[in-house]
Amino acid sequence: MDTTVLVGYIAGTLTTIAFIPQVSRAWRLRETRDISLAMLVLFAAGVLLWTIYGFSVSAPPIIAANVITFLLILVLAGLKLKYH
Amino acid sequence: MDTTVLVGYIAGTLTTIAFIPQVSRAWRLRETRDISLAMLVLFAAGVLLWTIYGFSVSAPPIIAANVITFLLILVLAGLKLKYH
Repeated sequence: MDTTVLVGYIAGTLTTIAFIPQVSRAWRLRETRDISLAMLVLFAAGVLLWTIYGFSVSAPPIIAANVITFLLILVLAGLKLKYH
Repeated sequence: MDTTVLVGYIAGTLTTIAFIPQVSRAWRLRETRDISLAMLVLFAAGVLLWTIYGFSVSAPPIIAANVITFLLILVLAGLKLKYH
């Protein structure tokens, strides 16, 4: 694996796992008032398009990172709506 | 501009502007308790690496999106620390 792809995978891992402490916090506090629903919607739409972009330029780190990020944002949006 | 680059720019615009309503909400509510600081730190580190990746694969949408996202996350982290 060349350095660029490695950097991409680390970058994707970081921006993806970033949502784990956020999901965990929302779950723990049962509070999501300070989290913007508009952010979640825009972000979900964005990562879907990043996934398409990733397929288009054949960049596995972009595809993998964005598919997982999308799922985590779905969970967070679900918690946001549940604890609304 | 070919379709792939256009999709990349739209994706980058969406995941970047996603942080604007979040910054706006934190500013307005003066409350950031529900936002995870760990998320902000991991995300900031991730978008810095995405920027390096973007330069490495010569992908302007990746570079532009991640530099702006980084700045918005800095503002959000500042608000988080201020209203701690």
